Amino acid sequence: MRLALFNKGRLGLIDGDDLVDVTEQLAGPGNPGPAGALQQYIEATARDDAGHLDLTGRPRVPLTEADLEAPLPRPGKIIGAPVNYLDHKAEMEYTTSIADLGVFLKANSSVIGPDQDILLPYTDKRTDQEGELGVVIGRTASHVSADDALDHVFGYTCVLDITVRSGEDRSTRKSFDTFTPIGPWIVTADEVPDPDSLDLRCDVGGVTRQETNTADLIFGVRELIAYTSSVMTLHPGDVIATGTPAGVGPLGHGDRVVLEIERVGRLEVGVDGSRAVPYEQRPGRRAR
Amino acid sequence: MRLALFNKGRLGLIDGDDLVDVTEQLAGPGNPGPAGALQQYIEATARDDAGHLDLTGRPRVPLTEADLEAPLPRPGKIIGAPVNYLDHKAEMEYTTSIADLGVFLKANSSVIGPDQDILLPYTDKRTDQEGELGVVIGRTASHVSADDALDHVFGYTCVLDITVRSGEDRSTRKSFDTFTPIGPWIVTADEVPDPDSLDLRCDVGGVTRQETNTADLIFGVRELIAYTSSVMTLHPGDVIATGTPAGVGPLGHGDRVVLEIERVGRLEVGVDGSRAVPYEQRPGRRAR
Repeated sequence: MRLALFNKGRLGLIDGDDLVDVTEQLAGPGNPGPAGALQQYIEATARDDAGHLDLTGRPRVPLTEADLEAPLPRPGKIIGAPVNYLDHKAEMEYTTSIADLGVFLKANSSVIGPDQDILLPYTDKRTDQEGELGVVIGRTASHVSADDALDHVFGYTCVLDITVRSGEDRSTRKSFDTFTPIGPWIVTADEVPDPDSLDLRCDVGGVTRQETNTADLIFGVRELIAYTSSVMTLHPGDVIATGTPAGVGPLGHGDRVVLEIERVGRLEVGVDGSRAVPYEQRPGRRAR
Repeated sequence: MRLALFNKGRLGLIDGDDLVDVTEQLAGPGNPGPAGALQQYIEATARDDAGHLDLTGRPRVPLTEADLEAPLPRPGKIIGAPVNYLDHKAEMEYTTSIADLGVFLKANSSVIGPDQDILLPYTDKRTDQEGELGVVIGRTASHVSADDALDHVFGYTCVLDITVRSGEDRSTRKSFDTFTPIGPWIVTADEVPDPDSLDLRCDVGGVTRQETNTADLIFGVRELIAYTSSVMTLHPGDVIATGTPAGVGPLGHGDRVVLEIERVGRLEVGVDGSRAVPYEQRPGRRAR
């Protein structure tokens, strides 16, 4: 299944060229709050308490007319994998990789959906695109083995891990509002037999910058889940961005960023630099 | 007001030596989910939609008989302030401070409450206590000024930012399950006229290790909120750990850690090293 949020929080299932509205059927009653109806559904599946799916008679909207939103507008956690492709390690001249660095966290307030704009914070610091396969946790995972890891996956999505190249902690450089485009939907795990063999391509301004296959991940999806779950308990709806290959580069005002992952989807967002300010004007700066 | 969670998710108001059960009155109907009833109340106050407080006839429990829990068992974000006291900068021989580093994030799955145990992950890596004033956000804050910052605060609590001294990203070293003891309650902001002048003391095994006043913060509470809100939108219930003074040090099996903050409260937790493993046995390690 491909599941999306659309038209101000409705839960939709993609059926051919249509989006079928399954909000009441799958998400159940009650206000889903800022985490959204798809989060509600993921939690229900984790409790084995999800609604039964029958598309007969459900309202339909042509996909082209629906306003798609981030499928998980405020995930419990957004976990990132630093330096998880060897070619990206080489291009950045990093001396360490994920095996030394562990994982980092991004603020869940940084999520945007398809066709929204990444806001560049600074006029004089690079803000780069990093295209990544996103893993959505389906069942609570603590100290799981790599062999069992995929049993804890709800599905997959496209994630852009937008990053400022400056001196702050990764959590700051990667957590500005709009810095985590997610979508356009979540593909359930049954449609992705092996997450470690997916083609991934990321274009900026019509030029291909990143092209890889997830087979080249240093920590593959199974090992990444196993490692992360050895540090922190993963809960349903948590998102793991699995890391970016070589080809990161600066974004400019007006750019379109397109991330396409085999079997998963195609996520496109814009870039808006109109509110960027000089780095020296940020709050909290100190004279040297 | 001092507000606590107790006895499996009940919301209580501390009145003298009693805890008055105000779950239905303040948190309103509906299952609060993993974020808990106090999160529900904080969100209601942000919407100006909180229940009216009348303690007449409400059930009471002596505070000594109540089982206090983390007041926010799963906050939306837990934000940390690295190197925000000059004496801690000196003891660690750091060359940078928060003005260079920005903020970091801790996993919201790392929270425990009063009298629970911090679990040491490694037998051969230091795990340190860091006692800190915690700020709980009450109203959504984006690009707020230092002058307006305190209008966005719901209240204050004690936070221990437990930290492994190893080479990983801060988010990993600080996000192991049990690494964020919070509590024992939240004191509402009206009871803390100036968060930048509070005595703070942290004892481990009966010996005082940390003793400071929040007047010594590099980024005071107002500036820290202003800075953080310039990067990421702060939502009701988000927690900011304001940073730790000098005196961090290793925890050992059986230690008791006591953090006491003027006007805020006294948080005590234990330390359990019985499940620690050698660092080289962690998942994902690589031969050099």
